[in-house]
Amino acid sequence: MKNTLSQRTINRLTQYHTILRDYTKKDIDYITSSQIANLLTMDETQVRKDVKQINCKGKCKVGYQVKELKNIIEKVLDYNTTKHAFVIGAGNLGMALSKYSKFSEFGLDIVCLFDTDKNKIGKLAGEKHIYSLEELPEKVKELNINIAILTIPNKFAQDVCDFLVKSGIKYIWNFTPTVLKVNDDIKVWNENLIGSFIQFCAISNVK
Amino acid sequence: MKNTLSQRTINRLTQYHTILRDYTKKDIDYITSSQIANLLTMDETQVRKDVKQINCKGKCKVGYQVKELKNIIEKVLDYNTTKHAFVIGAGNLGMALSKYSKFSEFGLDIVCLFDTDKNKIGKLAGEKHIYSLEELPEKVKELNINIAILTIPNKFAQDVCDFLVKSGIKYIWNFTPTVLKVNDDIKVWNENLIGSFIQFCAISNVK
Repeated sequence: MKNTLSQRTINRLTQYHTILRDYTKKDIDYITSSQIANLLTMDETQVRKDVKQINCKGKCKVGYQVKELKNIIEKVLDYNTTKHAFVIGAGNLGMALSKYSKFSEFGLDIVCLFDTDKNKIGKLAGEKHIYSLEELPEKVKELNINIAILTIPNKFAQDVCDFLVKSGIKYIWNFTPTVLKVNDDIKVWNENLIGSFIQFCAISNVK
Repeated sequence: MKNTLSQRTINRLTQYHTILRDYTKKDIDYITSSQIANLLTMDETQVRKDVKQINCKGKCKVGYQVKELKNIIEKVLDYNTTKHAFVIGAGNLGMALSKYSKFSEFGLDIVCLFDTDKNKIGKLAGEKHIYSLEELPEKVKELNINIAILTIPNKFAQDVCDFLVKSGIKYIWNFTPTVLKVNDDIKVWNENLIGSFIQFCAISNVK
């Protein structure tokens, strides 16, 4: 099913899911499309269209059952299959992501980190080992992991990316503000925090 | 000009800017719309449309002048006006963002941090002070800062958000996976890393 959804729909579904989690924690049973729309300052019709697309039915005047809609989104977007990943770069951001406990609740398991700095190699980030980047190819094979989270200085990004791909990595969650050159079979997802902030400022007219 | 651009156009312009920075560093003078399109796996016509919209003209068969296009994007999206911000929450992510030197290159100056943990208050994050959250209202007034970067545990997010707004904060860059309830005059930008990863997996069909 997820293959038939557009990128923008998937984006919105992850936002609905965030709201549904909050409602679940507050033990609220029902939510209306207008409540969701208000929280996200978006159009109610869009919410209804998205929810219909994933085959969830609401009750007239009551809304959607929170747990049901949450479960359907989790099923459609595959929240519940654990994905194992490596963090490349044990700097401040790499360490922060590795220690972030919320990730595991959403099926992201950061297994270990890699760095080239001798002062970091062999140490721990929380409970996770920091290995030498040279050991990556064997770890990829040994653990059968093909997702890398890239948090290294910009200037090394492309070279390290090439090394990751050569080592068997197929999916790169890229936190460096660089557009990486890769072949079509490698998927890169750019998490450009600076670009995101610039967007925020431009859209909100920050002065 | 930026007010007439759509959110999606602004998003794409920040991506073009990332490429133009790389090209500038490599001392490359010209770039074609097809080169940009290839790097971002997108449509060339879209690139040309976007660039035309910000009044940058390319030369036939040579492309756009890298420095010129970069400067125009920076002007349109206001890269060069420094924005001062507070980080709320001196945890791993808050510390990592505070120490991230690249932000200042793009006009984001993180001035100091706030936390409620007595073991953190009074200490430094890199060269930046960590203050008690109670001191926020006076710091907002004293420094005339109205941007907050929220990196606190989920369960405190809404209460702290209410406190920020009461203290005079107008713009919140929200790293907590919570949809915050605020009035229309307060702008929130959600940086939901978990949702982003889920999107990446769903779109790229990660298994």
